[in-house]
Amino acid sequence: MRKQKKEKNLGVTPRSQDFSKWYLDVIDAAELADYGPVRGTMIIRPYGYAIWEFIQSWLDAKFKETGHSNMYFPQLIPYSFIEKEASHVEGFSPELALVTVGGGKELEESLVLRPTSETIVNHMFAQWIQSYRDLPLLVNQWANVTRWEMRTRPFVRTLEFLWQEGHTAHCTPEEAEEEAMKMIHVYHSFAVEEAAMPVVVGRKSRAETFAGAVCTYTIEAMMGDRRALQAGTSHNLGQNFARAFGTQYTDEKGELQFVWQTSWGMSTRMVGGIIMTHGDDTGLLLPPRVAPIQVVVVPIWKKDEQKEGVMAAASRVVGALKSIGIRVKLDATEQKTPGWKFNFWEMKGVPIRIEIGPRDVAENVVVVARRDIPGKEGKEFGVPMEEGPLQEYVMKKLEEIQQSLLERATTFRESNILDVKSYEELKGAIAEGKWARGPWAGTDADEAQVKDETGATIRCFPFEQPPHSHVCLKTSKQASEVAIFAKSY
Amino acid sequence: MRKQKKEKNLGVTPRSQDFSKWYLDVIDAAELADYGPVRGTMIIRPYGYAIWEFIQSWLDAKFKETGHSNMYFPQLIPYSFIEKEASHVEGFSPELALVTVGGGKELEESLVLRPTSETIVNHMFAQWIQSYRDLPLLVNQWANVTRWEMRTRPFVRTLEFLWQEGHTAHCTPEEAEEEAMKMIHVYHSFAVEEAAMPVVVGRKSRAETFAGAVCTYTIEAMMGDRRALQAGTSHNLGQNFARAFGTQYTDEKGELQFVWQTSWGMSTRMVGGIIMTHGDDTGLLLPPRVAPIQVVVVPIWKKDEQKEGVMAAASRVVGALKSIGIRVKLDATEQKTPGWKFNFWEMKGVPIRIEIGPRDVAENVVVVARRDIPGKEGKEFGVPMEEGPLQEYVMKKLEEIQQSLLERATTFRESNILDVKSYEELKGAIAEGKWARGPWAGTDADEAQVKDETGATIRCFPFEQPPHSHVCLKTSKQASEVAIFAKSY
Repeated sequence: MRKQKKEKNLGVTPRSQDFSKWYLDVIDAAELADYGPVRGTMIIRPYGYAIWEFIQSWLDAKFKETGHSNMYFPQLIPYSFIEKEASHVEGFSPELALVTVGGGKELEESLVLRPTSETIVNHMFAQWIQSYRDLPLLVNQWANVTRWEMRTRPFVRTLEFLWQEGHTAHCTPEEAEEEAMKMIHVYHSFAVEEAAMPVVVGRKSRAETFAGAVCTYTIEAMMGDRRALQAGTSHNLGQNFARAFGTQYTDEKGELQFVWQTSWGMSTRMVGGIIMTHGDDTGLLLPPRVAPIQVVVVPIWKKDEQKEGVMAAASRVVGALKSIGIRVKLDATEQKTPGWKFNFWEMKGVPIRIEIGPRDVAENVVVVARRDIPGKEGKEFGVPMEEGPLQEYVMKKLEEIQQSLLERATTFRESNILDVKSYEELKGAIAEGKWARGPWAGTDADEAQVKDETGATIRCFPFEQPPHSHVCLKTSKQASEVAIFAKSY
Repeated sequence: MRKQKKEKNLGVTPRSQDFSKWYLDVIDAAELADYGPVRGTMIIRPYGYAIWEFIQSWLDAKFKETGHSNMYFPQLIPYSFIEKEASHVEGFSPELALVTVGGGKELEESLVLRPTSETIVNHMFAQWIQSYRDLPLLVNQWANVTRWEMRTRPFVRTLEFLWQEGHTAHCTPEEAEEEAMKMIHVYHSFAVEEAAMPVVVGRKSRAETFAGAVCTYTIEAMMGDRRALQAGTSHNLGQNFARAFGTQYTDEKGELQFVWQTSWGMSTRMVGGIIMTHGDDTGLLLPPRVAPIQVVVVPIWKKDEQKEGVMAAASRVVGALKSIGIRVKLDATEQKTPGWKFNFWEMKGVPIRIEIGPRDVAENVVVVARRDIPGKEGKEFGVPMEEGPLQEYVMKKLEEIQQSLLERATTFRESNILDVKSYEELKGAIAEGKWARGPWAGTDADEAQVKDETGATIRCFPFEQPPHSHVCLKTSKQASEVAIFAKSY
């Protein structure tokens, strides 16, 4: 087994050695994704896509519970639409992909592949919304978007990615604000409860606010290399797009008003976040709730006469776990040794492995190995094979692993956020690769200076703030809030 | 009520009067879709999208049951890929949309928005497939595709549409053929069992075969105006793409072989097919299994003191039906009269309406109206309101409506297919607006002539063939098969 482990490690650079190379190796070895023929594009392979499908189904159910309907807007947007909202065009025009030829002919107006859909949504909302009775209008779409990024990385930043984008219109600014907050909390719940990814929820600085929004809320996660990942955002758009597109309604008094809007999105980037939060030197490590395979069953025998009994037991175990909704895989290939299989499924991040050998069959037990605790410590022998007790044991163990991963990631994060009082302390924290949290009352120019000098940006002003106000770490002005600074993806 | 019905009809042109206008009116009035700002593009609105979501979830489950995994390929394809398979480029190049500018710069090579993904799929399969152990490779993706069509119609033919495309690779031609057949039968099952849409399953003529395929199987449905709609296709690709892209595997003897492939797709066009199969003068008529709302409950009261009792009863009825998984809507708005609501939900095609008035409450009964049988005949009074009996009654009634719609559509279709023995008879049938079924052994040129002279094409050679061979209706040669000719969408 040791030998094979070594062989396998040739495939995946240890995380501790080179995080960036480890990430790309894991994506390749675990067959999560591959590079498309066009620079910066990505193929999401079945194992990676299954994680995305889980994210989709969880979010989709939540969106519906909170009153949103799915629909679909075309991805082709007239170029002129993008120009209607001033800060929107400024933010997105460098990243646009343009269709200029259709059906063999030059088009009169270039068409944009949606980088996001606020413009076309407003073009339609303006036609559909007449009166206050049509509000709130709460919709979502699952779609691909295109942004011509120069530096790409699978899942984290690609020319084309998959996401959902919610778009809503309301009668009052209070309702829009409530909606924007509600949806960032949906993302927060997903990250913490399902992806075991502790995140800081907060407000973006003005410089980092979505192009066209009044205010952007974000969830920020710390990856294994301590860089921050923006994992989901929710925007209060105010009336910016409504005014640009004339999205108006008649209120109860019969007067025309502009609607108040929000938009919010989570993307396939989340898959990258899960990989980089939990993975270790061995490879991928998936939280049970999002794992496409939660349990792998490996039957082990040496002599031919042992095979039948072991295989029968393995099938019963698989059946027992499947019947209670556990996603289980039987690896019964005879072309690979058990040791090779152990390493393979560890690299693929499957949370639990069940081993069944002839002696286990004789004793009516199985061996259970936890992916998150390496070696003997994570292995339990003599777990009852009987249906009821086994089901209960595995369910409990999956829950334990889920919680344990969240705790581990939370501890890691907490030990890597430093509270800073001065710009010197901030520089020190960032130079150490950590996050810096400190009072901030600086201008956009101050923020830009920090970025230039340290490479760190304001990730957010966290919703959870210390009780007292302080002195800004850079300007020495009175600061009503602390901000978190970090290098980010 | 009569008056309001009349008002409502102002919105929807009767189907019997102008089918094409009726179709567009229904899509507008029922809020199924709207026109995008770019010519030929469509917004799928929540009510239409909910039908698509049902199609997705049904097919997705079937694809997984039959061993396919979902994944995602980029939509941007290098132009050179399209040119690699000779008949593919011939078929698709007139319909391509090209991205020529990205991130503000002219691209060196134009990129194609996928019109279908065989080329990029093979580019990747060639990298992933090494040995016979990697086969069969069975994948599917849910995606948008772009085809620069000149004549568009919502759902039926749009510049961009949503679909799934399955792509598989196999060791032998027999396996590929079996797969292509299996998947056309999945589409067949969906059409008949879920959409209550009788379809003819068959093989396309060479002229109508997918660009790059060896053989195309199709399901062909008859719309309410008797035009044919190709509602799903499955292609046996042979080794055409494998040879163009070098998609090879090492067989058990260690020799390099090209894979045998299939691809198959069903799209948002199916939503158009459902509308045009079942709709009537009143508007949309949805088969219960695909209806986003299966039952609408309309509480009716005149005096304020009646409201509480009626509303309480309506809520109980809604709860009882929801609890057994029926998709039910309570329409309790006070801004509209019951008569207006009846007409509105009839136009929206909801299969069952339940009316509850004060007298019903007193007698512990409800009134049930079937959408598919207009007027008093479709109305049943005194249906027990008690939970168990009501649940049973509604379940049974939904099933009855489902079956009844399938029978009605089947009868309509059968009475509109004429068996023809000569070209004159064929011309007569087509001139009458019907489908013609007759023995065919003509060439591509003969087929083209029929199209020129009658406007009809060979929809398919049905799998169900008459027992004896006949004389070709056009060439008088011996024909081993009958073909179906029709005008189509």
